[in-house]
Amino acid sequence: MAKAVWRGGALLAPVPPALVTCGTMEEPNVLTVAWTGIVCTHPAMTYVSVRPQRHSYGIIERTGEFVINLPTSAMAKTVDFCGMKTGAKLNKIERCHLELLPGETVSAPVLADCPVSLECRVTEAKPLGTHTMFLAEITAVQVEERLIDSKGKLNLQQAGLLAYAHGEYFAIGRKCGDFGFSVRKKRR
Amino acid sequence: MAKAVWRGGALLAPVPPALVTCGTMEEPNVLTVAWTGIVCTHPAMTYVSVRPQRHSYGIIERTGEFVINLPTSAMAKTVDFCGMKTGAKLNKIERCHLELLPGETVSAPVLADCPVSLECRVTEAKPLGTHTMFLAEITAVQVEERLIDSKGKLNLQQAGLLAYAHGEYFAIGRKCGDFGFSVRKKRR
Repeated sequence: MAKAVWRGGALLAPVPPALVTCGTMEEPNVLTVAWTGIVCTHPAMTYVSVRPQRHSYGIIERTGEFVINLPTSAMAKTVDFCGMKTGAKLNKIERCHLELLPGETVSAPVLADCPVSLECRVTEAKPLGTHTMFLAEITAVQVEERLIDSKGKLNLQQAGLLAYAHGEYFAIGRKCGDFGFSVRKKRR
Repeated sequence: MAKAVWRGGALLAPVPPALVTCGTMEEPNVLTVAWTGIVCTHPAMTYVSVRPQRHSYGIIERTGEFVINLPTSAMAKTVDFCGMKTGAKLNKIERCHLELLPGETVSAPVLADCPVSLECRVTEAKPLGTHTMFLAEITAVQVEERLIDSKGKLNLQQAGLLAYAHGEYFAIGRKCGDFGFSVRKKRR
């Protein structure tokens, strides 16, 4: 297939448009961050990259904590809104009617409506250009109980997570396979 | 909703199960990496986190280059296979009938069948535990021409990209909105 060559750009997809909470239960804030990912399995580590101009930047820098909350496709409008508006001028948590739960291992709150939340403690702030990468250890994971089956397995497909791809939000679609399916022997 | 609290784990989703190519056109290799993300917009930077035991690890470390190729949902079996098998024992590119194209800015090849490819040059290798994070600048992006409309806009939805979430592969589903839709004024 014919290809066009563009100069370097941030064109990776799909990525999770995470609702990142920071601060405390009393003084919380939330912002949307698509520049996130897993960087290590053991210890479990992630990052969020945030512009220093963002209101949450100073809070995360000061407290060294944040929570990555994975939103559902039903929350797309809230996700977009929390990326467009600043907590310096507006209480986004009240405005979006977001219910907070306490973190288990961090002072930053967890969003009750998100099926999965990763509690994170910053290990390093790395300035890269427009964004600073906050590398962090994942100290706990909160998961909606209704997604856990009787064997203790998490059924994330039922969560209906939201995806972000190059300026557009999408629901997760049909399942294409399980990890390892390409090499698994078929049962007779 | 009731929550279960687990210890920290690498539970972020959806993420791109990228086919990462490295080496050269003559001696290429490919492996699947879901631990990737954008870390900075300007300069455009990304990373891949790779276990030092992987065959591609030494190649990326030595050449300082790799290409992140975003696969379609039709490529799910190839994506899974290239994550399960090692290039030390098998020529995965031949076995999966992957067609290579030359990179514009790197010696590592680009996968013809992937609608989007990010050419990357390593800026830092950061050991974190099981995985080493290769931070990299995105030096060029190759995009399938059929996805670019007459205004030069990339329509990534048509690409049918594959997503990975907690051990399962998914197609991208229905669109839930455009970036900024929550605050855009409606036309009368």
